Amino acid sequence: MTEKSAIIPATHTVPPARFSHGVRKGNILQVAGQVGFLPHVDGRPPTPAGPTLREQTLQTLENVRSVLEAGGAGWDDVMMIRVYLTDTAHFAEMNAIYDAYFEEQGLREAPAARTTVYVGLPDGLLVEIDALAVLG
Amino acid sequence: MTEKSAIIPATHTVPPARFSHGVRKGNILQVAGQVGFLPHVDGRPPTPAGPTLREQTLQTLENVRSVLEAGGAGWDDVMMIRVYLTDTAHFAEMNAIYDAYFEEQGLREAPAARTTVYVGLPDGLLVEIDALAVLG
Amino acid sequence: MTEKSAIIPATHTVPPARFSHGVRKGNILQVAGQVGFLPHVDGRPPTPAGPTLREQTLQTLENVRSVLEAGGAGWDDVMMIRVYLTDTAHFAEMNAIYDAYFEEQGLREAPAARTTVYVGLPDGLLVEIDALAVLG
Repeated sequence: MTEKSAIIPATHTVPPARFSHGVRKGNILQVAGQVGFLPHVDGRPPTPAGPTLREQTLQTLENVRSVLEAGGAGWDDVMMIRVYLTDTAHFAEMNAIYDAYFEEQGLREAPAARTTVYVGLPDGLLVEIDALAVLG
Repeated sequence: MTEKSAIIPATHTVPPARFSHGVRKGNILQVAGQVGFLPHVDGRPPTPAGPTLREQTLQTLENVRSVLEAGGAGWDDVMMIRVYLTDTAHFAEMNAIYDAYFEEQGLREAPAARTTVYVGLPDGLLVEIDALAVLG
Repeated sequence: MTEKSAIIPATHTVPPARFSHGVRKGNILQVAGQVGFLPHVDGRPPTPAGPTLREQTLQTLENVRSVLEAGGAGWDDVMMIRVYLTDTAHFAEMNAIYDAYFEEQGLREAPAARTTVYVGLPDGLLVEIDALAVLG
Protein backbone atom coordinates (compact mmCIF):
# COMPACT_ATOMS: atom_id res chain seq x y z
CA MET A 1 0.00 0.00 0.00
CA THR A 2 1.35 3.38 -1.04
CA GLU A 3 1.00 6.15 1.52
CA LYS A 4 -0.74 9.42 0.73
CA SER A 5 1.31 12.25 2.22
CA ALA A 6 0.26 15.79 2.99
CA ILE A 7 2.60 18.41 1.57
CA ILE A 8 3.00 21.33 3.94
CA PRO A 9 5.33 24.08 2.73
CA ALA A 10 6.77 26.10 5.62
CA THR A 11 5.82 29.31 3.82
CA HIS A 12 2.12 28.54 3.63
CA THR A 13 -0.77 29.74 5.72
CA VAL A 14 -2.83 27.04 7.41
CA PRO A 15 -5.66 25.92 5.09
CA PRO A 16 -9.03 27.40 6.10
CA ALA A 17 -10.52 23.89 6.25
CA ARG A 18 -9.60 20.22 6.51
CA PHE A 19 -7.70 19.98 3.24
CA SER A 20 -4.04 19.79 2.29
CA HIS A 21 -2.14 22.34 0.19
CA GLY A 22 -0.78 19.33 -1.64
CA VAL A 23 -0.90 15.57 -1.48
CA ARG A 24 1.35 12.97 -3.00
CA LYS A 25 0.70 9.28 -3.48
CA GLY A 26 3.14 7.26 -5.51
CA ASN A 27 3.99 9.29 -8.58
CA ILE A 28 0.88 11.51 -8.48
CA LEU A 29 1.05 14.93 -6.84
CA GLN A 30 -1.96 17.23 -6.61
CA VAL A 31 -1.59 20.88 -5.64
CA ALA A 32 -4.68 22.50 -4.09
CA GLY A 33 -6.01 25.79 -5.40
CA GLN A 34 -3.46 28.46 -4.54
CA VAL A 35 -4.05 32.18 -4.38
CA GLY A 36 -1.69 35.14 -4.11
CA PHE A 37 -1.16 35.09 -0.36
CA LEU A 38 2.26 36.16 0.89
CA PRO A 39 4.33 33.66 2.88
CA HIS A 40 2.81 33.08 6.29
CA VAL A 41 3.85 35.32 9.19
CA ASP A 42 2.76 34.28 12.69
CA GLY A 43 -0.11 36.40 13.92
CA ARG A 44 -0.87 37.94 10.52
CA PRO A 45 -4.00 36.84 8.66
CA PRO A 46 -3.59 35.61 5.07
CA THR A 47 -2.56 38.66 3.04
CA PRO A 48 -2.46 38.96 -0.77
CA ALA A 49 0.86 40.01 -2.33
CA GLY A 50 -0.90 43.08 -3.67
CA PRO A 51 -4.05 44.26 -5.38
CA THR A 52 -2.81 43.80 -8.96
CA LEU A 53 -3.14 40.83 -11.28
CA ARG A 54 0.64 40.82 -11.75
CA GLU A 55 1.45 40.68 -8.06
CA GLN A 56 -1.16 38.03 -7.37
CA THR A 57 -0.36 35.85 -10.39
CA LEU A 58 3.36 35.77 -9.64
CA GLN A 59 2.78 35.03 -5.95
CA THR A 60 0.22 32.34 -6.82
CA LEU A 61 2.67 30.64 -9.18
CA GLU A 62 5.35 30.78 -6.49
CA ASN A 63 2.90 29.24 -4.02
CA VAL A 64 2.19 26.39 -6.44
CA ARG A 65 5.94 25.93 -6.90
CA SER A 66 6.48 25.77 -3.13
CA VAL A 67 3.99 22.92 -2.87
CA LEU A 68 5.55 21.09 -5.82
CA GLU A 69 9.03 21.41 -4.36
CA ALA A 70 7.99 20.44 -0.85
CA GLY A 71 6.55 17.31 -2.49
CA GLY A 72 9.73 16.48 -4.38
CA ALA A 73 8.54 17.76 -7.74
CA GLY A 74 8.94 20.83 -9.94
CA TRP A 75 7.27 22.59 -12.84
CA ASP A 76 8.66 20.04 -15.29
CA ASP A 77 6.50 17.37 -13.67
CA VAL A 78 3.28 19.32 -14.04
CA MET A 79 0.73 17.92 -16.50
CA MET A 80 -2.15 20.33 -15.95
CA ILE A 81 -2.51 23.86 -14.66
CA ARG A 82 -5.97 25.24 -13.97
CA VAL A 83 -6.17 29.02 -13.95
CA TYR A 84 -9.23 30.71 -12.50
CA LEU A 85 -9.58 34.39 -13.29
CA THR A 86 -12.42 36.71 -12.40
CA ASP A 87 -12.53 38.81 -15.56
CA THR A 88 -12.05 37.89 -19.23
CA ALA A 89 -10.33 41.26 -19.68
CA HIS A 90 -7.41 39.84 -17.64
CA PHE A 91 -6.60 37.01 -20.08
CA ALA A 92 -3.97 38.76 -22.20
CA GLU A 93 -2.16 40.25 -19.21
CA MET A 94 -2.21 36.94 -17.33
CA ASN A 95 -0.76 35.19 -20.39
CA ALA A 96 2.06 37.70 -20.62
CA ILE A 97 2.89 37.26 -16.92
CA TYR A 98 2.57 33.47 -17.23
CA ASP A 99 4.85 33.29 -20.25
CA ALA A 100 7.53 35.47 -18.70
CA TYR A 101 7.38 33.45 -15.48
CA PHE A 102 7.85 30.13 -17.26
CA GLU A 103 10.56 31.60 -19.47
CA GLU A 104 12.46 32.42 -16.27
CA GLN A 105 11.81 28.96 -14.81
CA GLY A 106 13.69 27.40 -17.71
CA LEU A 107 11.43 24.41 -18.36
CA ARG A 108 13.30 21.48 -19.89
CA GLU A 109 10.17 19.49 -20.71
CA ALA A 110 6.94 20.24 -22.55
CA PRO A 111 4.85 22.94 -20.89
CA ALA A 112 1.81 21.67 -18.99
CA ALA A 113 -1.66 21.69 -20.50
CA ARG A 114 -3.90 24.43 -19.15
CA THR A 115 -7.53 25.45 -18.80
CA THR A 116 -8.50 29.02 -18.01
CA VAL A 117 -12.04 29.91 -16.96
CA TYR A 118 -13.66 32.94 -15.35
CA VAL A 119 -15.33 32.44 -11.99
CA GLY A 120 -16.12 34.23 -8.78
CA LEU A 121 -13.40 34.38 -6.14
CA PRO A 122 -13.37 35.83 -2.62
CA ASP A 123 -13.19 39.61 -2.44
CA GLY A 124 -9.83 41.04 -3.42
CA LEU A 125 -8.56 37.88 -5.11
CA LEU A 126 -8.09 38.00 -8.89
CA VAL A 127 -6.55 34.61 -9.61
CA GLU A 128 -6.46 31.06 -8.29
CA ILE A 129 -4.33 28.24 -9.71
CA ASP A 130 -4.09 24.51 -9.06
CA ALA A 131 -1.90 21.84 -10.63
CA LEU A 132 -1.62 18.12 -11.21
CA ALA A 133 1.85 16.61 -11.48
CA VAL A 134 3.05 13.16 -12.46
CA LEU A 135 6.56 12.39 -11.29
CA GLY A 136 8.60 9.93 -13.16
CA MET B 1 -5.02 -3.84 -21.21
CA THR B 2 -6.71 -2.51 -18.10
CA GLU B 3 -10.47 -2.18 -18.28
CA LYS B 4 -12.26 1.07 -17.54
CA SER B 5 -15.33 0.32 -15.45
CA ALA B 6 -18.38 2.45 -14.89
CA ILE B 7 -19.29 2.88 -11.23
CA ILE B 8 -23.03 2.85 -10.72
CA PRO B 9 -24.18 3.24 -7.10
CA ALA B 10 -27.67 1.78 -6.55
CA THR B 11 -28.69 5.00 -4.78
CA HIS B 12 -27.97 7.26 -7.72
CA THR B 13 -30.28 8.82 -10.26
CA VAL B 14 -29.51 8.02 -13.88
CA PRO B 15 -27.07 10.61 -15.29
CA PRO B 16 -28.81 13.18 -17.51
CA ALA B 17 -26.42 12.36 -20.36
CA ARG B 18 -23.98 9.72 -21.59
CA PHE B 19 -21.54 9.96 -18.71
CA SER B 20 -20.74 7.80 -15.69
CA HIS B 21 -21.12 8.85 -12.05
CA GLY B 22 -17.69 7.33 -11.62
CA VAL B 23 -15.10 5.43 -13.60
CA ARG B 24 -12.18 3.34 -12.47
CA LYS B 25 -9.23 2.16 -14.48
CA GLY B 26 -6.36 0.47 -12.70
CA ASN B 27 -5.69 2.50 -9.56
CA ILE B 28 -7.31 5.73 -10.77
CA LEU B 29 -10.91 6.50 -9.82
CA GLN B 30 -12.70 9.63 -10.99
CA VAL B 31 -16.00 10.72 -9.45
CA ALA B 32 -18.21 12.89 -11.66
CA GLY B 33 -19.66 16.14 -10.37
CA GLN B 34 -22.18 15.27 -7.68
CA VAL B 35 -24.95 17.50 -6.39
CA GLY B 36 -27.26 17.21 -3.41
CA PHE B 37 -29.86 14.89 -4.90
CA LEU B 38 -31.50 12.41 -2.57
CA PRO B 39 -31.13 8.69 -3.28
CA HIS B 40 -33.08 7.72 -6.36
CA VAL B 41 -36.72 6.65 -5.97
CA ASP B 42 -38.40 5.09 -9.01
CA GLY B 43 -40.77 7.53 -10.64
CA ARG B 44 -39.49 10.58 -8.74
CA PRO B 45 -37.40 13.13 -10.62
CA PRO B 46 -34.01 14.06 -9.12
CA THR B 47 -34.78 15.93 -5.89
CA PRO B 48 -32.33 17.96 -3.78
CA ALA B 49 -32.00 16.98 -0.12
CA GLY B 50 -33.25 20.44 0.78
CA PRO B 51 -32.88 24.10 -0.05
CA THR B 52 -30.06 24.84 2.40
CA LEU B 53 -26.32 24.75 1.88
CA ARG B 54 -26.01 22.36 4.84
CA GLU B 55 -28.48 19.84 3.49
CA GLN B 56 -27.05 19.96 0.00
CA THR B 57 -23.39 19.85 1.03
CA LEU B 58 -23.88 16.83 3.29
CA GLN B 59 -25.92 14.97 0.67
CA THR B 60 -23.38 15.84 -2.01
CA LEU B 61 -20.52 14.50 0.09
CA GLU B 62 -22.51 11.31 0.73
CA ASN B 63 -23.12 10.99 -2.99
CA VAL B 64 -19.39 11.28 -3.67
CA ARG B 65 -18.76 8.67 -0.97
CA SER B 66 -21.29 6.28 -2.54
CA VAL B 67 -19.41 6.43 -5.83
CA LEU B 68 -16.06 5.96 -4.13
CA GLU B 69 -17.32 2.95 -2.20
CA ALA B 70 -19.08 1.38 -5.16
CA GLY B 71 -15.70 1.64 -6.91
CA GLY B 72 -13.79 -0.01 -4.07
CA ALA B 73 -12.34 3.18 -2.63
CA GLY B 74 -13.00 5.57 0.24
CA TRP B 75 -12.22 9.12 1.33
CA ASP B 76 -8.70 8.09 2.34
CA ASP B 77 -7.92 7.43 -1.32
CA VAL B 78 -9.03 10.86 -2.51
CA MET B 79 -6.31 13.17 -3.79
CA MET B 80 -8.39 16.11 -4.95
CA ILE B 81 -11.82 17.48 -4.16
CA ARG B 82 -13.26 20.23 -6.34
CA VAL B 83 -15.98 22.25 -4.66
CA TYR B 84 -18.19 24.49 -6.77
CA LEU B 85 -20.27 27.02 -4.85
CA THR B 86 -22.55 29.71 -6.21
CA ASP B 87 -21.82 32.45 -3.69
CA THR B 88 -18.60 33.54 -1.97
CA ALA B 89 -20.72 34.26 1.12
CA HIS B 90 -21.14 30.47 1.52
CA PHE B 91 -17.42 29.74 1.95
CA ALA B 92 -17.20 29.87 5.75
CA GLU B 93 -20.37 27.83 6.27
CA MET B 94 -19.31 25.23 3.70
CA ASN B 95 -15.93 24.93 5.42
CA ALA B 96 -17.58 24.33 8.79
CA ILE B 97 -19.85 21.64 7.30
CA TYR B 98 -16.92 20.11 5.41
CA ASP B 99 -14.69 19.98 8.47
CA ALA B 100 -17.35 18.43 10.68
CA TYR B 101 -18.16 15.87 7.97
CA PHE B 102 -14.55 14.77 7.59
CA GLU B 103 -14.06 14.76 11.37
CA GLU B 104 -16.87 12.22 11.53
CA GLN B 105 -15.43 10.18 8.67
CA GLY B 106 -12.30 9.56 10.73
CA LEU B 107 -9.69 9.97 7.97
CA ARG B 108 -6.55 7.97 8.67
CA GLU B 109 -4.53 9.56 5.86
CA ALA B 110 -3.76 13.14 4.82
CA PRO B 111 -6.85 15.09 3.79
CA ALA B 112 -7.24 15.60 0.05
CA ALA B 113 -6.18 18.78 -1.69
CA ARG B 114 -9.08 21.04 -2.63
CA THR B 115 -10.04 23.88 -4.94
CA THR B 116 -13.14 25.97 -4.30
CA VAL B 117 -14.49 28.34 -6.95
CA TYR B 118 -17.78 30.16 -7.45
CA VAL B 119 -19.76 29.35 -10.56
CA GLY B 120 -23.28 29.15 -11.86
CA LEU B 121 -25.25 25.98 -11.16
CA PRO B 122 -28.73 24.89 -12.22
CA ASP B 123 -31.56 26.60 -10.35
CA GLY B 124 -31.91 25.48 -6.75
CA LEU B 125 -28.47 23.86 -6.51
CA LEU B 126 -25.92 25.54 -4.22
CA VAL B 127 -23.01 23.13 -4.41
CA GLU B 128 -21.39 20.59 -6.72
CA ILE B 129 -18.40 18.42 -5.83
CA ASP B 130 -16.18 16.03 -7.79
CA ALA B 131 -13.19 13.98 -6.71
CA LEU B 132 -10.12 12.20 -8.02
CA ALA B 133 -8.87 9.16 -6.12
CA VAL B 134 -5.73 7.07 -6.43
CA LEU B 135 -6.05 3.63 -4.88
CA GLY B 136 -3.33 1.32 -3.75
CA MET C 1 12.57 8.61 -16.03
CA THR C 2 9.47 8.84 -18.20
CA GLU C 3 9.39 11.71 -20.64
CA LYS C 4 6.56 14.23 -20.72
CA SER C 5 5.66 14.91 -24.34
CA ALA C 6 3.74 17.82 -25.79
CA ILE C 7 0.90 16.78 -28.06
CA ILE C 8 0.57 19.11 -31.02
CA PRO C 9 -2.23 18.25 -33.48
CA ALA C 10 -1.56 19.65 -36.95
CA THR C 11 -5.07 21.07 -37.03
CA HIS C 12 -4.66 23.22 -33.95
CA THR C 13 -3.98 26.92 -33.59
CA VAL C 14 -0.89 27.85 -31.62
CA PRO C 15 -1.76 28.18 -27.90
CA PRO C 16 -2.04 31.83 -26.82
CA ALA C 17 0.50 31.20 -24.05
CA ARG C 18 3.25 28.82 -22.95
CA PHE C 19 1.05 25.76 -22.52
CA SER C 20 0.50 22.58 -24.50
CA HIS C 21 -2.80 21.49 -26.09
CA GLY C 22 -2.04 18.12 -24.57
CA VAL C 23 0.70 16.38 -22.64
CA ARG C 24 1.39 12.72 -22.12
CA LYS C 25 3.62 11.09 -19.56
CA GLY C 26 3.55 7.34 -19.22
CA ASN C 27 -0.08 6.30 -19.31
CA ILE C 28 -1.54 9.68 -18.31
CA LEU C 29 -2.72 12.08 -21.00
CA GLN C 30 -4.14 15.50 -20.18
CA VAL C 31 -5.99 17.55 -22.80
CA ALA C 32 -5.98 21.32 -22.23
CA GLY C 33 -9.21 23.31 -22.35
CA GLN C 34 -10.44 23.24 -25.93
CA VAL C 35 -12.92 25.63 -27.50
CA GLY C 36 -14.78 25.55 -30.79
CA PHE C 37 -12.06 26.96 -33.02
CA LEU C 38 -11.92 25.64 -36.58
CA PRO C 39 -8.76 23.87 -37.75
CA HIS C 40 -5.90 26.31 -38.10
CA VAL C 41 -5.39 28.09 -41.41
CA ASP C 42 -2.15 30.03 -41.87
CA GLY C 43 -2.73 33.75 -41.57
CA ARG C 44 -6.25 33.43 -40.14
CA PRO C 45 -6.78 34.24 -36.47
CA PRO C 46 -8.52 31.59 -34.31
CA THR C 47 -12.09 31.40 -35.58
CA PRO C 48 -15.03 29.64 -33.88
CA ALA C 49 -16.90 27.05 -35.97
CA GLY C 50 -20.00 29.21 -35.63
CA PRO C 51 -22.03 31.22 -33.18
CA THR C 52 -24.30 28.38 -32.03
CA LEU C 53 -23.90 26.00 -29.12
CA ARG C 54 -24.26 23.07 -31.51
CA GLU C 55 -21.49 24.20 -33.85
CA GLN C 56 -19.15 25.06 -31.02
CA THR C 57 -19.80 21.92 -28.95
CA LEU C 58 -19.22 19.58 -31.89
CA GLN C 59 -16.05 21.40 -32.94
CA THR C 60 -14.80 21.46 -29.35
CA LEU C 61 -15.33 17.71 -29.01
CA GLU C 62 -13.50 17.16 -32.29
CA ASN C 63 -10.66 19.33 -31.02
CA VAL C 64 -10.40 17.24 -27.87
CA ARG C 65 -10.43 14.10 -30.02
CA SER C 66 -7.61 15.46 -32.20
CA VAL C 67 -5.44 15.90 -29.14
CA LEU C 68 -6.31 12.46 -27.81
CA GLU C 69 -5.49 10.83 -31.13
CA ALA C 70 -2.28 12.78 -31.66
CA GLY C 71 -1.28 11.45 -28.23
CA GLY C 72 -2.07 7.85 -29.09
CA ALA C 73 -5.38 7.71 -27.22
CA GLY C 74 -9.09 7.91 -27.98
CA TRP C 75 -12.40 8.59 -26.27
CA ASP C 76 -12.38 5.12 -24.71
CA ASP C 77 -9.36 6.10 -22.64
CA VAL C 78 -10.97 9.22 -21.20
CA MET C 79 -11.75 9.14 -17.48
CA MET C 80 -13.02 12.68 -16.97
CA ILE C 81 -14.53 15.35 -19.17
CA ARG C 82 -14.99 18.86 -17.80
CA VAL C 83 -17.59 20.91 -19.61
CA TYR C 84 -17.71 24.65 -19.07
CA LEU C 85 -20.84 26.39 -20.31
CA THR C 86 -21.80 30.02 -19.96
CA ASP C 87 -25.53 29.63 -19.37
CA THR C 88 -27.53 27.05 -17.41
CA ALA C 89 -30.20 27.30 -20.11
CA HIS C 90 -27.77 25.48 -22.44
CA PHE C 91 -27.57 22.31 -20.34
CA ALA C 92 -30.31 20.27 -22.01
CA GLU C 93 -29.20 21.18 -25.53
CA MET C 94 -25.55 20.44 -24.76
CA ASN C 95 -26.54 17.06 -23.32
CA ALA C 96 -28.45 16.17 -26.48
CA ILE C 97 -25.50 17.15 -28.68
CA TYR C 98 -23.09 15.32 -26.35
CA ASP C 99 -25.14 12.13 -26.35
CA ALA C 100 -25.56 12.07 -30.11
CA TYR C 101 -21.85 12.72 -30.58
CA PHE C 102 -20.81 9.85 -28.32
CA GLU C 103 -23.45 7.58 -29.85
CA GLU C 104 -21.72 8.17 -33.19
CA GLN C 105 -18.26 7.61 -31.70
CA GLY C 106 -19.27 4.06 -30.78
CA LEU C 107 -17.66 3.87 -27.34
CA ARG C 108 -16.73 0.32 -26.38
CA GLU C 109 -15.93 1.14 -22.76
CA ALA C 110 -17.76 2.95 -19.97
CA PRO C 111 -18.42 6.61 -20.73
CA ALA C 112 -16.17 9.06 -18.89
CA ALA C 113 -17.23 10.83 -15.73
CA ARG C 114 -18.16 14.46 -16.25
CA THR C 115 -18.59 17.74 -14.41
CA THR C 116 -20.51 20.62 -15.95
CA VAL C 117 -20.35 24.11 -14.47
CA TYR C 118 -21.28 27.57 -15.70
CA VAL C 119 -18.52 30.14 -15.96
CA GLY C 120 -17.46 33.14 -17.92
CA LEU C 121 -15.67 32.56 -21.23
CA PRO C 122 -14.13 34.98 -23.74
CA ASP C 123 -16.66 36.84 -25.89
CA GLY C 124 -18.36 34.69 -28.48
CA LEU C 125 -17.38 31.36 -26.90
CA LEU C 126 -20.19 29.27 -25.40
CA VAL C 127 -18.35 26.11 -24.39
CA GLU C 128 -14.95 24.88 -23.28
CA ILE C 129 -14.01 21.25 -22.62
CA ASP C 130 -10.95 19.51 -21.20
CA ALA C 131 -10.25 15.84 -20.58
CA LEU C 132 -8.07 13.47 -18.58
CA ALA C 133 -7.24 10.10 -20.10
CA VAL C 134 -5.54 7.02 -18.69
CA LEU C 135 -4.16 4.70 -21.34
CA GLY C 136 -3.31 1.09 -20.95
